[in-house]
Amino acid sequence: MVAQQQDQPVEGRFDGIEHRFPVRVYFEDTDLSGVVYHANYLRYMERARSDMLRLAGIDQRAAQEAGEGTYAVSALAIRYRAPAKLDDALVVVTGLMQVRAASVDIHQRVMRGAQILSEAEVTAALVGVSGKPKRQPREWIEAFQRLVGQRDQEA
Amino acid sequence: MVAQQQDQPVEGRFDGIEHRFPVRVYFEDTDLSGVVYHANYLRYMERARSDMLRLAGIDQRAAQEAGEGTYAVSALAIRYRAPAKLDDALVVVTGLMQVRAASVDIHQRVMRGAQILSEAEVTAALVGVSGKPKRQPREWIEAFQRLVGQRDQEA
Amino acid sequence: MVAQQQDQPVEGRFDGIEHRFPVRVYFEDTDLSGVVYHANYLRYMERARSDMLRLAGIDQRAAQEAGEGTYAVSALAIRYRAPAKLDDALVVVTGLMQVRAASVDIHQRVMRGAQILSEAEVTAALVGVSGKPKRQPREWIEAFQRLVGQRDQEA
Amino acid sequence: MVAQQQDQPVEGRFDGIEHRFPVRVYFEDTDLSGVVYHANYLRYMERARSDMLRLAGIDQRAAQEAGEGTYAVSALAIRYRAPAKLDDALVVVTGLMQVRAASVDIHQRVMRGAQILSEAEVTAALVGVSGKPKRQPREWIEAFQRLVGQRDQEA
Repeated sequence: MVAQQQDQPVEGRFDGIEHRFPVRVYFEDTDLSGVVYHANYLRYMERARSDMLRLAGIDQRAAQEAGEGTYAVSALAIRYRAPAKLDDALVVVTGLMQVRAASVDIHQRVMRGAQILSEAEVTAALVGVSGKPKRQPREWIEAFQRLVGQRDQEA
Repeated sequence: MVAQQQDQPVEGRFDGIEHRFPVRVYFEDTDLSGVVYHANYLRYMERARSDMLRLAGIDQRAAQEAGEGTYAVSALAIRYRAPAKLDDALVVVTGLMQVRAASVDIHQRVMRGAQILSEAEVTAALVGVSGKPKRQPREWIEAFQRLVGQRDQEA
Repeated sequence: MVAQQQDQPVEGRFDGIEHRFPVRVYFEDTDLSGVVYHANYLRYMERARSDMLRLAGIDQRAAQEAGEGTYAVSALAIRYRAPAKLDDALVVVTGLMQVRAASVDIHQRVMRGAQILSEAEVTAALVGVSGKPKRQPREWIEAFQRLVGQRDQEA
Repeated sequence: MVAQQQDQPVEGRFDGIEHRFPVRVYFEDTDLSGVVYHANYLRYMERARSDMLRLAGIDQRAAQEAGEGTYAVSALAIRYRAPAKLDDALVVVTGLMQVRAASVDIHQRVMRGAQILSEAEVTAALVGVSGKPKRQPREWIEAFQRLVGQRDQEA
């Protein structure tokens, strides 16, 4: 029903095994060079990953409050190809590349229409409250594996 | 058509003379106290104002690129009543209070359901490329006056 | 000794009962209008308050880790008088106005030389892990009262 | 004279051919996991690069205002090894790896004492107002080459 969807924050969606998440560019995202500040693409990508987890049934807030830890980026490589500008309607496209016991490898690209503005490979690891890496719950790994269409789990 | 709306960033809407704009809380918004960092409510409110301008037919990016200036906050008073948390679905409700020649007074509140988390009064002034205040274009003032339902313009 | 001060982050200092804290403007702080984004003055002011607490002997991190809570801004009113630009060397001047059992009122202004760029009145309240306001430890109140030169505590 | 240095923002320094820049962690830098949000290390690194340019005699603000362009990150690869926490006193250590006609390769690491918290390789390219890459001014390249101790310029 339309009425129920009023006032709901944006949600991404899966298109096959890729997750698509829309982002609008606001003043806060730009710097004096007139385009989006380079670090802010990492914020966009993190929003998309969080949305993908939510859609996959993984509740980060509940996990964090239950002391089960949070995902932390352990490595990230990004290329900036073209700048995004104020008011641009962007889409962050996210694909899972590999699922390991304690971490996942993710590919993300920020698109404006058919143009790739930036793309990144990100490794996110589950980290316990102690700050140490920990194994992802089995049901999370299974949710990821369904996304990645991957049959063989590498430990 | 649904297909056209796919991958579109969130848009607010007018409910009578109030503008409603949904916001999701992400990791980037929180601090170590576990809730949204106080300065980030100002980012939410600015997104809502920018969306309201877009819906009212005012193109901030075109104006900025044409050298016609941008809106700058000249005064802001905010009260924080309750904290927002990761994953919260919020709505920023914005109402125009008064339209002057070179500035507007705005009331904004950040809601989670029926609860007011924070509310602010904001004065935004149009500022030219020189950094000096300037008169708002007549058609912008008229657009605001339609929103505010205000008959008498104060100069 | 000079050698000991190498590689130390900036520290503020007390000049009488006012605390002075230097800030440099970087790209991250600006937006496409070419000046500092309005919400970022709140970040500068918060850095100054944290530095003032440190100099006053109040260890926010230890308090937070010990579950004693953190300060949260409960109200803030700010006026923006002139914009700050990239590379500007600013000073945040902070004065305590009033100390109450569970909160303090603070006046802050962001200066560039003798010019006031923005000024704010901020109420910061101690908040426990439950999210509820709590009384400030006696030694913190005493530290504040020394700063404010205030003899009578208002509960 | 000490009096002149009062109220000055922090400045980095060269230690041989490495640039060292101190950073303090504030609330704004952390997220609810209790440590510094991953994108914020990029802000620290950008502050250090800007400071290094300033010390090398390159005035980014003058260049930007004169329409000569600004540096933009074109590629960045970062590894996160250990988290930084509130109040930590960090040092960003920056070394130039290679100077090309229109870009430079830089290595940066964020240290807490002797511990590497994160390290990155960054390519920064000079970008004109049109958004196109442009050759760096000869005197900038020479300044970089003195830093890198590199004799042969690669075009």
